[in-house]
Amino acid sequence: MALANENYLKTPEIYGFDEIEKRINAYRILNPKSELINIGLGDVTLPLIPEVVKAMHLASDELSKTSTFKGYGPPKGYDFLISKIQKNYKTNGIAIDKDTIFVNDGAKSTIGNIGHVLGRDNIIAISDPVYPVYENATIMSGRAGDLNEKQQWSHIVYLHCSEKNNFIPDLPKERVDIIYLCNPNNPTGTAMNRSELKKWVDYAIENHSIIVYDGVYSEFITEPDIPRSIYEIKGAKKVVVEVRTYSKLAGFTGLRCGYAVFPNELTVYTQEGESIPLVKLWNRRNSYYTNGVSYIVQRAAEAIYSIEGERQIKEQISYYMTNAAMLREQLIALGHEVYGGVNAPYVWMKTPGNSSSWDYFNELLYLKKIIVTPGVLFGKNGEGYIRFSGFANREMMKLALEKFKT
Amino acid sequence: MALANENYLKTPEIYGFDEIEKRINAYRILNPKSELINIGLGDVTLPLIPEVVKAMHLASDELSKTSTFKGYGPPKGYDFLISKIQKNYKTNGIAIDKDTIFVNDGAKSTIGNIGHVLGRDNIIAISDPVYPVYENATIMSGRAGDLNEKQQWSHIVYLHCSEKNNFIPDLPKERVDIIYLCNPNNPTGTAMNRSELKKWVDYAIENHSIIVYDGVYSEFITEPDIPRSIYEIKGAKKVVVEVRTYSKLAGFTGLRCGYAVFPNELTVYTQEGESIPLVKLWNRRNSYYTNGVSYIVQRAAEAIYSIEGERQIKEQISYYMTNAAMLREQLIALGHEVYGGVNAPYVWMKTPGNSSSWDYFNELLYLKKIIVTPGVLFGKNGEGYIRFSGFANREMMKLALEKFKT
Repeated sequence: MALANENYLKTPEIYGFDEIEKRINAYRILNPKSELINIGLGDVTLPLIPEVVKAMHLASDELSKTSTFKGYGPPKGYDFLISKIQKNYKTNGIAIDKDTIFVNDGAKSTIGNIGHVLGRDNIIAISDPVYPVYENATIMSGRAGDLNEKQQWSHIVYLHCSEKNNFIPDLPKERVDIIYLCNPNNPTGTAMNRSELKKWVDYAIENHSIIVYDGVYSEFITEPDIPRSIYEIKGAKKVVVEVRTYSKLAGFTGLRCGYAVFPNELTVYTQEGESIPLVKLWNRRNSYYTNGVSYIVQRAAEAIYSIEGERQIKEQISYYMTNAAMLREQLIALGHEVYGGVNAPYVWMKTPGNSSSWDYFNELLYLKKIIVTPGVLFGKNGEGYIRFSGFANREMMKLALEKFKT
Repeated sequence: MALANENYLKTPEIYGFDEIEKRINAYRILNPKSELINIGLGDVTLPLIPEVVKAMHLASDELSKTSTFKGYGPPKGYDFLISKIQKNYKTNGIAIDKDTIFVNDGAKSTIGNIGHVLGRDNIIAISDPVYPVYENATIMSGRAGDLNEKQQWSHIVYLHCSEKNNFIPDLPKERVDIIYLCNPNNPTGTAMNRSELKKWVDYAIENHSIIVYDGVYSEFITEPDIPRSIYEIKGAKKVVVEVRTYSKLAGFTGLRCGYAVFPNELTVYTQEGESIPLVKLWNRRNSYYTNGVSYIVQRAAEAIYSIEGERQIKEQISYYMTNAAMLREQLIALGHEVYGGVNAPYVWMKTPGNSSSWDYFNELLYLKKIIVTPGVLFGKNGEGYIRFSGFANREMMKLALEKFKT
């Protein structure tokens, strides 16, 4: 009899974000002609930059000729891309071994699948609120325990973030083995600085823990005290897997490409206490479970490292960050309690009058025809907040902000 | 202390096939000017068909404009591709629900990751010889037990294939829960016909087992009695996940696209005996662990379903199968014991004089400058055999066959 992994049954059948779509559809049935403005989404809106498109045309032509055709690529990624990633680290003063860089199809697959190379009995720490994939992957892998009366999982250590700590996670009081950190954070847009990150690295070194560092928004950082890579912190290579992606940086949410670094220095342990470089385990997973990332997509990613590519990318980031700054400034001017928007394209706002996230979502939808993302979708501590996103189109954003004033 | 999944340590650090590269490099150091001919590889050699290349150029242009830009796609794949897959099944008389089709980045990820939605205590059955990913995924997921004195895993039920059963697996004597079937088989090139497949489907229904059906080579089938989809067999939808890919069919080994079908009728069980449609579990995994397949790659896959696309693809398949037929005929004419090459591009040959796979590999490498794939890489029962591949370039193939005669 084929048995199920019953841990999967503990996750909701419907992805939390689908509820947004459901409510919008309900609204549209009642108001078929009404135009809605979405300024909550995490997806990009600007088209791919010309350098990337050029690279894709070139790669398509290469694949059309016998002499330049490419079949299976290296499972870890082509050297032409890995070299660029390495060089980019080097420019920022960080030495990364090429063998420790794994090109992937975006951050999500590494963030989800990393649990498979780790022991079942690890205690996982997760910020709250945060991108929900860390918690879901923990549940599905059987490490979450049971749902308690507070609607949180008994074996997960939640790193509570709120206005009290400016939405910056504090070190846990108990010992944890695997720590997911999203910095800058989705959804709050807040970011830990050097000294805050150092505390985490030191904690992990002391406790032989590892940090899965989700740096998906690192290229949006504007303040000098916030490192773009956690490897700027001394000792981080001993304890951190850094995950980065071209999704937000270069509008690759539909193209699918990113990378993760598994430093040689980073070790995990057997039950007997023997230390094993994690990269050795990940390398096996990567060889046996994937055949690498599409050649054409890797060529597209390579293109953003050219001088012209970098210039075009910076323009896009600046567009989104200008949106975020507009959101932030105008919401503050209207008297709202606001976080983020400086080192990440997200602006996190307390709902007026202590409304719940969903009540305020409904209010904005029905009264202002504006769609935002309810904070509670990112965890219990997100209740009473909403997320705005700078990824929206500028004109739409302006229109929404006008409506907000009324 | 961060713990490792120690099951990963049971797999070799080096992927078995890397040994081939190692030996070739050793040869090249001694014979730097010698030209080698590889007729053993599983990778394709013909460039992408014009229809696919055209689609990729069009998709690149779409992504370059705001009005046609695509960000995150549906995690299961775009409807434009899923509709074509569904229609292709329908043309062959098979009704498949669109919701049960999952576009993926090639067969390997579904074959490897399917273990994650299944219970740890399932007993796995695997053909020997076969594509090594099934066994490696079983080991890494902790379902293999220990390596015994025969160098096989104590908890895996091996379906022994040899000249005695014409390399067609027999039903196991013990009860098994998950059965991996590769049909047509890699490496032997042999294929189960309708009545042989029916035995497996009936077995699975009777035992509440499931079959992971790897149909990667199904489009190379030429004999009418071999079904291209196992869903042609009555009841198969109750017990089979069918995995297919564009890798070999359309030369997508470097582009990365395929699909898997998880029929609604297929159920797995909780420890309490409750039945759960497997598609519900896979759907969650797919939403939480991936963001779907690259838009441009899905457009490329769609293009092979056009009239002109189908014609161009058929030409490629015919080219590879002509190679396979040449290999088969000439090896038989030389008095060799040969399997496959009729419904799959692989030709499986017994080594002369009972040589081991590696001894014969060395002999061909050093005496004839020909590279083949040692059968033993596909399992214990592959010892004493080698795999030839019709995916080679025609001229190289002819040259190799000439050398074989001498």
